[in-house]
Amino acid sequence: MNGAESLVTTLVDQGVDICFANPGTSEMHFLSALDNPKMKSVLCLFEGVCTGAADGWYRMTDKPASTLLHLGPGLANGLANIHNAKRASSGMVNIVGEHSLKHLSYDPPLTSDIEGLARPLSYWVRRADSSTTIAWDAATAVAEASSHPGKIATLILPGDTAWKNAGEAVLPPARPSGRNAPDQARVDQVAKVLRSGEPVLMILGNKATRGRALELAGKVAAGTGCRLGSQFFTARIERGAGRVPLERIPYAVAGGQAFLKDFRHIVTVETKEPVAFFSYPDKPSLLKAPGTTVHSLVEPDEDSVAGFEMLIDALGLKDTAPVLQERVETPPPSGALNPESIANALAAALPENCILVDESLTTGRQTMGFTMGALPHDLINNMGGSIGYGTPVATGAALACPDRRTFCMVGDGSAMYTIQSLWTQAREGLPVTTIIFANNQYAILKAEYSNMGAGEAPGPQAMSMIDIDRPTIDWVAMAKSMGVPGVSVDTAHDFHSAMVRSAGEPGPSLIEVKLY
Amino acid sequence: MNGAESLVTTLVDQGVDICFANPGTSEMHFLSALDNPKMKSVLCLFEGVCTGAADGWYRMTDKPASTLLHLGPGLANGLANIHNAKRASSGMVNIVGEHSLKHLSYDPPLTSDIEGLARPLSYWVRRADSSTTIAWDAATAVAEASSHPGKIATLILPGDTAWKNAGEAVLPPARPSGRNAPDQARVDQVAKVLRSGEPVLMILGNKATRGRALELAGKVAAGTGCRLGSQFFTARIERGAGRVPLERIPYAVAGGQAFLKDFRHIVTVETKEPVAFFSYPDKPSLLKAPGTTVHSLVEPDEDSVAGFEMLIDALGLKDTAPVLQERVETPPPSGALNPESIANALAAALPENCILVDESLTTGRQTMGFTMGALPHDLINNMGGSIGYGTPVATGAALACPDRRTFCMVGDGSAMYTIQSLWTQAREGLPVTTIIFANNQYAILKAEYSNMGAGEAPGPQAMSMIDIDRPTIDWVAMAKSMGVPGVSVDTAHDFHSAMVRSAGEPGPSLIEVKLY
Repeated sequence: MNGAESLVTTLVDQGVDICFANPGTSEMHFLSALDNPKMKSVLCLFEGVCTGAADGWYRMTDKPASTLLHLGPGLANGLANIHNAKRASSGMVNIVGEHSLKHLSYDPPLTSDIEGLARPLSYWVRRADSSTTIAWDAATAVAEASSHPGKIATLILPGDTAWKNAGEAVLPPARPSGRNAPDQARVDQVAKVLRSGEPVLMILGNKATRGRALELAGKVAAGTGCRLGSQFFTARIERGAGRVPLERIPYAVAGGQAFLKDFRHIVTVETKEPVAFFSYPDKPSLLKAPGTTVHSLVEPDEDSVAGFEMLIDALGLKDTAPVLQERVETPPPSGALNPESIANALAAALPENCILVDESLTTGRQTMGFTMGALPHDLINNMGGSIGYGTPVATGAALACPDRRTFCMVGDGSAMYTIQSLWTQAREGLPVTTIIFANNQYAILKAEYSNMGAGEAPGPQAMSMIDIDRPTIDWVAMAKSMGVPGVSVDTAHDFHSAMVRSAGEPGPSLIEVKLY
Repeated sequence: MNGAESLVTTLVDQGVDICFANPGTSEMHFLSALDNPKMKSVLCLFEGVCTGAADGWYRMTDKPASTLLHLGPGLANGLANIHNAKRASSGMVNIVGEHSLKHLSYDPPLTSDIEGLARPLSYWVRRADSSTTIAWDAATAVAEASSHPGKIATLILPGDTAWKNAGEAVLPPARPSGRNAPDQARVDQVAKVLRSGEPVLMILGNKATRGRALELAGKVAAGTGCRLGSQFFTARIERGAGRVPLERIPYAVAGGQAFLKDFRHIVTVETKEPVAFFSYPDKPSLLKAPGTTVHSLVEPDEDSVAGFEMLIDALGLKDTAPVLQERVETPPPSGALNPESIANALAAALPENCILVDESLTTGRQTMGFTMGALPHDLINNMGGSIGYGTPVATGAALACPDRRTFCMVGDGSAMYTIQSLWTQAREGLPVTTIIFANNQYAILKAEYSNMGAGEAPGPQAMSMIDIDRPTIDWVAMAKSMGVPGVSVDTAHDFHSAMVRSAGEPGPSLIEVKLY
């Protein structure tokens, strides 16, 4: 067994059984080792698709995927979606090829400081300097990536480490799994606040927005009258009819402030107090009102199920039924496309248990509330703010959940960043419906221009950096070029019909929603 | 005048008058400042296109372009082509937006260690901490980028630096321009070697492969009988009929060794001795034969024109006529597409003074010699080895030389990395003919698999990571989706005709060369 085989064997033995790959010459031994029947390999035609897909895989499985990236530049191409994954607390094991040590001394063309490139966005970085210890390195990488919250682990694989004999694998001792419960004193303080009768917003993040944690939060809300919220962006929310509903804190600074102004207390669960996405000359960074106190119930590295159980004990709410969202039947809309009719079309079309990846930016921003009463589904957001996350994350989520339909709502500007995802979706026959909101502009930037105090409106040259018409992108042709059937719609009725139709067919499809 | 305006004004005053941009919210003041009539702004739909286009601009003008990138992830998306530009000694000024200092303390979603991301691939990095000193920072960035060889300079622009009042611009003192001549003792040593009668290969790199330096090298070859070579990849070569011909050192280790084995001396000019691109278990890193001595005539930071003038003085070759390439008329080929007929079609079709950007990998690798006697043209190669450089570099080269036709030869695997270039080409109406060599595979990796000793042939799972059929990419639909007319050809005759036709029409076009 060589080092590459030892690495792949260790990955699968430790539960990492998928690799999103774009290999190069220096990874040929790893490529050969991928012919392991327990490892699924998925080819992506750009590394940003690999890392985004690994993020999507983690969001749906809570297990890290691996990626295979070609030296420093291959890693660099994946970094933007590594940033997004890091901000979503997704675990990921990146394997980055590297020249052999001897060869590096001659500074060949593809040489770069891979550790330097990996460090800013990885929690853990190691250069695997020997084939005999690479099993240990790989198991450590998986353990780091799998910890709570999930982490980015990057393992650099020099050629000679891959091709030399590995000998017997030696693994580090297994780490204790299980998460820390929060401190009792903190729980008691939050219980006191909740009993005070003062208005409280409890903000849930990361793994608290689903499963048992979410259900327990619903009991606290039912028993104390506190309101439950989520940040504007959350890694994954289980929502829709029958789930505990979370109110979404608005994105814009003024809207966020208005939403938060009447709460005397904010209680955080696996998240922090709300912060503005960007800095503006005359706007604050923190959105809470003066006089609002922030209390942490569960820190990001703690267990929110345990935290809620302790809180429910303290409050005596064990037998309280949680607040649940009622089903709202939305009739398929007709007429022109606008944010409301789009949201209603979504609400009417979403099939039970689907996955909704949202990178719709301006189009979907104000109206996702209309889908609160849709059939139960998972909603995934971009936590890092780097555009081009949507189509790769949808690809990874669909591989994780091949029996569910994934809808990926994405603005045209964002979609262009990592459009190569469509090819992988076609190759793997994934049940993904990509919905392109085509407004031919970085519409969010038009709004932000005056928000930012850069002037009333952009001048002609600046405006031309925000409009992405000239030429208009033909999204149906784009989809066709990569083997994905597409359709263009310009009415709410046709949008709804296209979604329903796509959900009834196997494999990927694309819907261009013409907003111009 | 605010900081952003001071920055843009300084850039144009210092001769940087084009900006390849993909702006975000944090760059709204810079965007507003771009409405400067002396600055041309070019929108790219992915940052890898911005940085690659800046590289292409530098290759044809010897002047740095600027890029505008959105925080750490925007920079990250541009890094692979920054790596390629760095390896090509191209100058570039990257402007990277950043949150204001105050906002950073709240760790908002788009926060990352931008200096950490910039450092590994930049020669110079600075955070512009005050609007009052940003003119100084900008002028320093341009001076660094414009030095010889060209450098990557990255200036990080926090929001508050952009929007606050800049006051009077204060600039650093101008640097002495002009390059160092090589040491006389080194020149004399090379003269002695050339007079020895022993076989000598002189390898030219960077700026020595064009203009007066190349002509002088031709005199040395004519007068001494030494042979003139280039690395397999060179930033830009002026070649074709009437130019001093350079022999290309083969890419593969065995071929490179065979080419070099009979030279007793290697003389380097703005380059280093030949090194294998990758490391292989049983192959050397250095390609020269044992017993070959390497002499540096001109170091990468020295002036090759001065070096050759000193050498010609020492050798008394002032009146020697240089060796020049004869014109070879190639009749348009017919029949099947293969490396030879493709090269002949190129040789027959290339119009005088065109630019040829080569990222053809396997298809063009062995046969570019057939175009040595074509009409004079510029050849541009990928120096850094990160794929996806071709279409962006062609975009920048065409903006630099709007009166010349640029042909971009690119493999299908490479083209998919930064295919967004086509959109910018359509928007700007650039005279670029993109030639996609569609073999539906990362063919180079198939060859490298056994080279690398990873086995006879990849197993089925590994092979599926190298083939990029399933689905086949429809390149004509891809081009159409971004407003570029395309045609698919499968004979040498049709390939030649399509090239000739494209050169006779304004604006971009795409030719899919079907090799399957």
